[in-house]
Amino acid sequence: MAQGASMPPARVVPEDDDAQAVGHEPCGVLRQVVAACVYPELLGGLDLPEGAQRRARRVLREMDAGNIGGYNHEHRSLLVPARVARFLERRDGGVPSDPRNIIVCSGTASILPFVFSLVVDESAALPTAVLVPVPGPRLLVAAAELAGAAVVPYPLAEERGWDVDGDTVRWALREARARGHPKVLCVVNPGDPTGHVLSRESMESIIRLVAEENLLLLADEVQQERAFLRDRPFLSFKRVLWEMGPPLVSTVQLVSFYSLSKSVAGESGFRAGFLELVNVEEGVVLPFHVAQSIPRPCVLGRILLDLLMDPPEEGDPVQQALEEHRQVLLHSLAHNSRLLQELLGRAPGICCHPVQGGSRAFPRIQLPPRALRRAQELGLEPDVFFCRELLEATGIALAPGSEFGQPEGTHHVGISLLPPPGKLTQILLALTRFHAAFLLRFS
Amino acid sequence: MAQGASMPPARVVPEDDDAQAVGHEPCGVLRQVVAACVYPELLGGLDLPEGAQRRARRVLREMDAGNIGGYNHEHRSLLVPARVARFLERRDGGVPSDPRNIIVCSGTASILPFVFSLVVDESAALPTAVLVPVPGPRLLVAAAELAGAAVVPYPLAEERGWDVDGDTVRWALREARARGHPKVLCVVNPGDPTGHVLSRESMESIIRLVAEENLLLLADEVQQERAFLRDRPFLSFKRVLWEMGPPLVSTVQLVSFYSLSKSVAGESGFRAGFLELVNVEEGVVLPFHVAQSIPRPCVLGRILLDLLMDPPEEGDPVQQALEEHRQVLLHSLAHNSRLLQELLGRAPGICCHPVQGGSRAFPRIQLPPRALRRAQELGLEPDVFFCRELLEATGIALAPGSEFGQPEGTHHVGISLLPPPGKLTQILLALTRFHAAFLLRFS
Repeated sequence: MAQGASMPPARVVPEDDDAQAVGHEPCGVLRQVVAACVYPELLGGLDLPEGAQRRARRVLREMDAGNIGGYNHEHRSLLVPARVARFLERRDGGVPSDPRNIIVCSGTASILPFVFSLVVDESAALPTAVLVPVPGPRLLVAAAELAGAAVVPYPLAEERGWDVDGDTVRWALREARARGHPKVLCVVNPGDPTGHVLSRESMESIIRLVAEENLLLLADEVQQERAFLRDRPFLSFKRVLWEMGPPLVSTVQLVSFYSLSKSVAGESGFRAGFLELVNVEEGVVLPFHVAQSIPRPCVLGRILLDLLMDPPEEGDPVQQALEEHRQVLLHSLAHNSRLLQELLGRAPGICCHPVQGGSRAFPRIQLPPRALRRAQELGLEPDVFFCRELLEATGIALAPGSEFGQPEGTHHVGISLLPPPGKLTQILLALTRFHAAFLLRFS
Repeated sequence: MAQGASMPPARVVPEDDDAQAVGHEPCGVLRQVVAACVYPELLGGLDLPEGAQRRARRVLREMDAGNIGGYNHEHRSLLVPARVARFLERRDGGVPSDPRNIIVCSGTASILPFVFSLVVDESAALPTAVLVPVPGPRLLVAAAELAGAAVVPYPLAEERGWDVDGDTVRWALREARARGHPKVLCVVNPGDPTGHVLSRESMESIIRLVAEENLLLLADEVQQERAFLRDRPFLSFKRVLWEMGPPLVSTVQLVSFYSLSKSVAGESGFRAGFLELVNVEEGVVLPFHVAQSIPRPCVLGRILLDLLMDPPEEGDPVQQALEEHRQVLLHSLAHNSRLLQELLGRAPGICCHPVQGGSRAFPRIQLPPRALRRAQELGLEPDVFFCRELLEATGIALAPGSEFGQPEGTHHVGISLLPPPGKLTQILLALTRFHAAFLLRFS
């Protein structure tokens, strides 16, 4: 691995995309099933409802020796992947999914360096280049660097609601060729921290681009269950690729990520997720199945994941509770997104594109020249300076835009969409008031 | 990372060091605490005893928003490491332990490549060499190769009960220097699959050797809670190093591993463990704390780990149940080890050193020349051939010695120490009968 891989900068704000830490309730029935699996003596008792007990019995029947305490390799490597594949087929309107191409892992963060390491050739004279969106999750950059890749940023089109612009990507590709051998294009959809959801047209043009340029498309689709607009639903790259038909459908290499943390259950603590490999050559698929070093999820994370994959079943209480949970989550995201538009839309010097999905908004904030000079004197990025002052004045911690990268000369803050509406209103009002005062102070 | 890292061979036998999969009961009270943390509505109910509920309340108070559903970074990075450090100080008779040097991880398998990657320099002209014991866990080899190291085996001294022999290690070091730059000596104690426990004298000579040769000592001590002989207790390398005093105590670099899977709880499914870094330079410690890509354990694995770290407390039911669980485990291991000696000791052509700890015995089995030729015709290692024939004839699956490596020209099988005694007796009787018939058949 590359030495001196760059580390994420110190955060001003705790994980604000961590649903339950910012106040979301867990989905009770899922927790009931897991609790019964942990301590099966609860089965037959009075504390857990019958529906959850029935489901837990099914889970335990699938465990080695009927017990979650062993490695339970088959559960991870065969049983859950088969259920995930059926789930993806339903999600994608019938596009077939092969369980052998589903890798159950302990979340995106720890599997990403392994994925990159299979593509990066550290012994080659030219470094392997990986293209990442800016703004985008810092994690992609850290993992690619850890695997020894040269990271080449491509800017998202803020003026078009953070869409991916083909010409910009091609321009970045030329840059990448100057520095190395470009092999991977990372796309984040729904966007993080940008909160955009890609249209089918954008996705098709990205797919054509990776096909022409012979790139692997790494689709960070972990926020897929947080797209809340009826007229901009989440579409998977796999589905769009499938619907584009031959020849692309059988040639474009795609890796897509799903995470329990960003799922409707929002269970970050359980550390589980999966990735699906599409058109990826056998030599790359094999290591995922046999390498002992791949971070494997805890059996309880897998059980939760498995519960989320269940097909809808009339009258099943676990399903029903999960569906209600989903509706509450989507409703709350949509409501918060309207709040953002209302409260930031009328603030001078703040501009926020309508959010379509995901966990964050990424409004642009105007910082006056005198504030930029003051930040420079302090040796701080201007947005970090702004966020620190905000924190000191109001107690509110927002993520400075430089943590995710931002277009040259612009400044942004990341705002979580996940807090309860009352809390978010407080945050937004404090931000707009503080920003107005900040403009005056440095005018 | 190195391309084409070697993969573990297909196993003839499932994970026979997986306590609960081979029939060990989970420690009920630990499961009760975890279940209550998963579904806190159980608190105050009738299904869980009061002691477990009290302990669960304490755990939940330490969670962000009182809920296990978030990332709970502080729990992992501050709270559990502090408790682990106190645990290690008690284990080592007061040798101080600094929480900053404790890294909580999701088990040994997934953190090992990261550890090696911090030591291996892939851009150097000479490959970094890592010395591993033979026989030893295949995992060490796979992880070192994945990180791009040149793996150099050093044989354990079978004739001295699989002790580590300093002269042999020095001989291997010369070999390592011919192939690269040796930086790491891996030692497994209690041994796996060999079941030996190192004496203080052996450990002191290993420590002097790594000091002289300027190697990092990587101590796989995951089986530490399975040393069952009163007169050969497990001693940690850290303690022995400490007791050797200056100058070694402040210069020898040591990394030691602990695993929930091999702990007294034997909870492999929960994927948690930790490592302690001793005298390791700041530049190597830092990435463990900040790299986002380190596989982090599920919150429930951390909770279990935390419970195991608790100091003994008079009258605490959780502690008491755990202590009983420990006594049952050690008694069963000691009993099984005696069974092995009795039943294999009188079998001609089978030789087994007394087991002192760990999860396996590794008896040597004589295979007649005609059997070796037959195996060669079939393209199989002789011990794999033997194990396959055994499996077909008796339904009993043992691990062929070649999976762990073995001295040139010798053949062994790995036998789990963990099954219930009745089951182990069956296995051993079937093995000795089959082996006698096998000797006849190929004589």
